Formats: sequence, C-alpha cells, structure tokens
Amino acid sequence: MNENFVCKNIGVNEEGHLTFAGQDTVSLAKEYGTPLYLMDEDRIRENMRVYKKAFAENFPEGSEPLFASKACSFAQVYRIALEEGMGIDVVSSGEIYTAMKAGYPLSNAHFHGNNKTDEDIAFAIRNGIGFFVSDNREELDVIDREAQKAGIRQKVLLRLTPGIDTHTYEKINTGLVDSKFGTAIETGQAEEIVKYALTKENIELKGYHCHVGSQVFAEDVFEEAALIMIRFIGHMKDVCGYTAEYLDLGGGYGVRYVAGDGYINIAEKIRSVAETVAKASAEAGVPFPKILMEPGRSIVADAGMTLYTAGSVKRIPGYKNYVSIDGGMTDNPRFALYGSKYTCYNAGKMNEERTLNASLVGRCCESGDIIAEKIDFAQSTCRGDVMAVCTTGAYNYSMASNYNRVARPAMVMLKGGESYIAIRRETLDDLVNLDI
Amino acid sequence: MNENFVCKNIGVNEEGHLTFAGQDTVSLAKEYGTPLYLMDEDRIRENMRVYKKAFAENFPEGSEPLFASKACSFAQVYRIALEEGMGIDVVSSGEIYTAMKAGYPLSNAHFHGNNKTDEDIAFAIRNGIGFFVSDNREELDVIDREAQKAGIRQKVLLRLTPGIDTHTYEKINTGLVDSKFGTAIETGQAEEIVKYALTKENIELKGYHCHVGSQVFAEDVFEEAALIMIRFIGHMKDVCGYTAEYLDLGGGYGVRYVAGDGYINIAEKIRSVAETVAKASAEAGVPFPKILMEPGRSIVADAGMTLYTAGSVKRIPGYKNYVSIDGGMTDNPRFALYGSKYTCYNAGKMNEERTLNASLVGRCCESGDIIAEKIDFAQSTCRGDVMAVCTTGAYNYSMASNYNRVARPAMVMLKGGESYIAIRRETLDDLVNLDI
Repeated sequence: MNENFVCKNIGVNEEGHLTFAGQDTVSLAKEYGTPLYLMDEDRIRENMRVYKKAFAENFPEGSEPLFASKACSFAQVYRIALEEGMGIDVVSSGEIYTAMKAGYPLSNAHFHGNNKTDEDIAFAIRNGIGFFVSDNREELDVIDREAQKAGIRQKVLLRLTPGIDTHTYEKINTGLVDSKFGTAIETGQAEEIVKYALTKENIELKGYHCHVGSQVFAEDVFEEAALIMIRFIGHMKDVCGYTAEYLDLGGGYGVRYVAGDGYINIAEKIRSVAETVAKASAEAGVPFPKILMEPGRSIVADAGMTLYTAGSVKRIPGYKNYVSIDGGMTDNPRFALYGSKYTCYNAGKMNEERTLNASLVGRCCESGDIIAEKIDFAQSTCRGDVMAVCTTGAYNYSMASNYNRVARPAMVMLKGGESYIAIRRETLDDLVNLDI
Repeated sequence: MNENFVCKNIGVNEEGHLTFAGQDTVSLAKEYGTPLYLMDEDRIRENMRVYKKAFAENFPEGSEPLFASKACSFAQVYRIALEEGMGIDVVSSGEIYTAMKAGYPLSNAHFHGNNKTDEDIAFAIRNGIGFFVSDNREELDVIDREAQKAGIRQKVLLRLTPGIDTHTYEKINTGLVDSKFGTAIETGQAEEIVKYALTKENIELKGYHCHVGSQVFAEDVFEEAALIMIRFIGHMKDVCGYTAEYLDLGGGYGVRYVAGDGYINIAEKIRSVAETVAKASAEAGVPFPKILMEPGRSIVADAGMTLYTAGSVKRIPGYKNYVSIDGGMTDNPRFALYGSKYTCYNAGKMNEERTLNASLVGRCCESGDIIAEKIDFAQSTCRGDVMAVCTTGAYNYSMASNYNRVARPAMVMLKGGESYIAIRRETLDDLVNLDI
C-alpha cells in the first residue's frame, strides 16, 4: 500500500497532478468533463479476487462471495462480476433488470430486501432468480404462490436477526433485534418463521442469512454473528430436524475513507470466521455450512474517485472558507445523510503547500450540501481547478439524485492505462424525459 | 381549515377512506398504482394566489413572488405558475430547461445558486434569463463576459448574508455569516462585492437578495432581515450613491407537517414585512424597494400526498412494530436527511381505532430508510393496504433518487374532481437508459 494515500491506486505524477489507477486525473477531467465518476476496473477485479481466493481456501465447496450490487449497480459491474465468477445480491426489480441486460445469469443472484412487492417476486421468479432472502411471512406466502404458478420449488434463505451491536453508525446498523430487517432469534420469532417456511410446498428452504451492519471495523463481530447463527442451526436441527445447508453472513467490512480509518485484511478476517464456524459447527453437531458473504463497499469503494471543477472560492475572514464544486449531494449524499468523511485534493496542485483550510461544498441550494469539511487545499485553489474526492465507488452513483434538476455525472472506467464510458452523462433531455 | 387534519384538503369519505382534494385515495392508488405522488393543483393555485394578493396589497408595483421551483420542479408546475402570473426562481440549467419546455418565459425567471458553471451562465444568457442572483466575484466575471458576447446588460441581484439565526434546523439554515451562500454584510465583504459589481460594464445591478432559512416559524425573522437589508441599501447609497431597486427577501415560511406544527398566516406576515420595510426605508432615506420573495415549500408542500402499498407488517414483542411500504427514502429522503416528521394514515381504514404504533419504513436495504416513526395505525394494517403520507409536495419528488435501482413514482395531479398524470412512472428501461 502507498503509505502516503488513503488507497493504493492513488498517486502523483511528474506534473504534480493526482493520478488514479495510474492515469492523470486532470487530463481525464478535461477529456470527459466534470463532475465525473472514475472507476478503477482493475481494482474492482482485485477486490473480488481477494474474496474468491479466501473463500476457496477457507470454506466448503458451494460457498461463494456475492457482490452486494446496491453499492453501485450498473450494467458493466455485473459483466465484471460475471467474468470474475462472483455471485451477486440484488434488492429490486431494477437491479435484476440491469443484471439481465448485462447478461448476468440470474440463477447466481440472491434477491434481498425487507419488502419485495408482489410484482417484484413474480418478475424475479419468471426470470429464474437463484435465491430469495426473505424475512417475513407475507413474502413467503407470495413466493410460494408464484413458485407454484411457475411449477418450481423456489430456493429461499431466511434473514434472521442475531441481535448484535456492531458499534457502527446507527443508520447503517442492522443486526439489532429492533430492526426493520430480519426476524429476531431472541424473541422466538426466528424459530417460528423457519417452521412456517418448512410448511410451504413450493419453497425449498436452503438456510439462513444475517447482516450485522455496514462499514464495520469492530474486532470480531462477524465471528460473533457466525457463532449465534451456527448455534441456531443446531437448535433448529434439534427442534424440528431441519439442518441449514447455507449460512449467509452478509456484508459490511469497513473501508478506508480517511487516513485515520483502520485497514481490514479481508483474507485474515475470512480465515478467522472460518475457524469460528468450524469450531461452532463441531460443538453444535452440524456440518460446516456453505458460507455466503455479501461484500459491496469493500469491492467498489476504493475503486472509485469523483472529479469536480471548482467554482467560487469564498474566504470569510474570522469564520471559514468554502470551495464550491459543480456537483455535490446530488452525486454524493453521504455527508448530508451520515456526516461521512472523505479525503479530498486539488488534483492539479498536488505539490503546492496545503494552507487553505476549507469546506468542499456542492452547488445545490441547500446548506447541508457539503462533501467534506476542514480539508487542507492548495492556497491558490481557484475557479476552474479540478477537485478530487477519493473512495467514492460505493453508495455515490447508486444514491445519486436529480435534486435541483442537476444531471447525474458520467462514469468512466479505468483499465490498464485505458479508459471508457460505462455510464453516459445525463442530458437536459433526460431530465425532462418523465415530464408530461 | 379542517381541524381534524394537518391540511385542509384532507378528509374522510363515507367508505372510511382518506380523501385528498376531495378524491378517494384508495381508488387513486388502484387506478394509478403505487408508490404515487398526488398533487392538488387547486391547492397550488390557491397558495400562489395568497402571495399574489398580499403582494399587490402591500408592496410597490414591480414587486412579485417567485415560485422557488427547486421545491418541486416539473413541467406542469411551471405551466401553472405561468397561468397564475407567478415568477419563478431556478437553480440549474436543468430547471431552466424544464421551464423552457413548459413554455415558461425565462425573462420572468431568477437564476440562483452558490456555484453556477460557465456552461450554466452561457446557457441562461443565451435563453434570455431575467435575473441572475449571484454571490461571488468569479461568477460576476463570467456573467459580465457572457453578457458582453450576447450584446446585453445582464440584470443581477447580489446575494448577501444578513447574519441572522433563524433557530431552525442547522442544515437548512442559511442566513448566518458562516455559510456557503451569500456575501456577509458584517465582514465588509458585501460592500466590496457591490462596488465590484458596479464596475462591470455588462452587468446591471438591480439590488440585493437574502435568504434566512427554510421551514421558518420564528416570529419576526423576515422583518429582522428586511431591516438589516434596508439599512444596507441606505449605507451603500451613502457610500457610493447606488440605490437598490429590488430587495429579494428569499423564501422559507414554515408549513404544517404534523398537528404540533404552527400555522403561518402568509397574508399577515407579508403585511408585517411591508410595515417594517416602509418604516426602515423612511428612516434610511431610501425609496421603498420593489420586493421579491421566493416561496417554494409554502406553495407546494400541502398540495402533495404520497400513496404507498404496505408489504410486511412486523410486530416485534417488547420492541417495536414496522410497516414496510413499496417506496421510501428513494421518493422521500427527508427523514433520512433531517429526521423530518410526517402525518401518516392507513388510507382505507380511517374509521378503525388506531392501536398499532409502528414505524413506517421504506423498501431500501438501509436501516435509515424510514418515513416516519411512532405513528398510530389501524390495528388490522396488513400487506396490500394503501398507506398515505401527507404534506409531501415539497422536496420529495425533487430529491428522489434511484437508490437500490428503485424507479421513481408517477405524479398525478388532482383538479376539480378530475385527475391526470403530470410525471409518468419510471420504467425498468428508464433505469438502464444511461448504462452502456
């Protein structure tokens, strides 16, 4: 890892320009315009391979990592996942349709979400979805009915709530009992829903799913969750003779946004989870289940960077400074939503001393439209400069809006020194496309 | 006002169904599908007329209210504004283009924003924008240059910061000195930028703008701002002989989301502002300026309602209950962003006792995807029920995203007992439209 930068695919070239995936970001901004999402394809593949390799080394055959595509869903990322042999998880008919358009075989897709509509369920079954991950009876009823219509037995995992506090930020903490997701083990409702699923003729219950949270750095939270889930597998075997074939441990490993963030060694973490599962399975008297995990952020976050052009630069004596850019919460709402931190640079002035402490703010008519606060930029930062925000590959494009009727940026893929457009820039005509 | 409901266009019919603008919401959900934005056209017109009438009665000729279209920008709302004789404020080329497509004459549009790009400025001038509202030198330079190219003198208002604390929520509080918006009077920078603008040959400085915040209920904050601004008009007259013709006081009057919110009598408020301006102008020895205001929320918020279909209903004993819907933070991110409150109903079960206390939560794979917490619903609430969220006309559609690749809802206008589609529902093909 390049110790000077938050991600190892970041550097500085001889002109003093920021590079990403070895390419000059100032040149990329000029060629494709701003705001612009960059995505390092090689880095995505590398991240996927870390999971693939660790899974092959530590878990039984049939185990696999699934790319949680909600982190960044677009056609090209599904093609990459297909080439890398990654499964996918999808959360809507929209994600399913995008994967289909990209030629991704749905038999390798897991359909998630706390609330699939009847139409979603029918659409997914009609198109041969591999697994549903479900957490409520109403949905099981609809899956059962639609599977019957289709003349199949639909594979289903049940999402359960292990009741773990991950000590991450509240809004993205989903493993607690009091959650819109899952069915709680603690309250006895998990046992009930398993029994209920087993009564459904057209449902083939394949196992359990849990998800402890997002952007998790805590030491052993996945191990703890695995332990609870394996004990539950043992419990259900004792109670009604059902042994889960799959255990899906969800996603959530944290990534580095700023220098102060930790660094998670995925391969080591997976080895540690495997040890826990092996020990717990032996104790519970159940076979080591096929393991699934759902990395999203840790696949695409550090493969992304966003480039902007600076507009006004405000210096308010005695208060604060502001560098305004031509994008903002429309392409990256994570500060507005979570107060998330980012590493930011003036991409063309990397060798200048950074003595302008400023907030990097968006163009929306909203005070909360901030990308990052208290960043040190080159003192000469001015209108026209290319500004870069690092680690924007996850939950940026996927969460983008047209607030203020601002068009969404293009996404350019970087691969082995070449670049190509994966998502075209939204036009003014696109913006009025739905208006009558 | 109907005392039983948060807005006066809400009621209950003989079948015990929620009505909006006199129409049965359960029937509308069946006819148009869910999720669905409803917009009460008659109510929009009524809200615009309140401002128009109060302006005519209290302010000099040439004064006018401008609809802050970022609250909800779509073609039909500009047609309505045109018919009602409302000016508009726009904040991007996207809003300008939408207004143009709707046949709205740009000469009556004010172009706002802390950071317009060179392309935005050229586009606006090329299409005959009425006024720019600008707050930084970089932008004045570009406006001057583009106006020269076009052979015109461009009308400009300068956005200044009066330094007022509106005691509203931080993220939407914009009148303080430390803001990405405006140029502060307190620091002397306002005086400097006025002098700078006056040196620009192709700029016709028409006056000043300020905006104290959003969803403001505080007693006399607009009066206070007007006072500071009028004094500044007087000060600049003394300093350099320039007398502002226009004073734009921005927007921000609060609307009722829940029963506990106050109720603002717009007509009275405007009369009070007029009294302040009259007195202050006389004291400062300047003429009563032409007044502009920019209501957005108070024009469209209570004209909106969103309808959803319930999916899973989770009862977690000892913890909490959850009613999941087929939309969420994708069509209404205001709880996720600000913790905003809403009034919600089970639209088809209005006459049932409300004993199910639950959170109304969205379908996104994100814990923060909540619409409202601690709402009392009919105990029998179940999958398939139509759920209604009130007062969603402002900052819902305009802030909508495709997070989780969820399609954006249609918007149906209600007018005199009839209904029609103003924004069509996004399709799966629309969702992949930008993907290559």
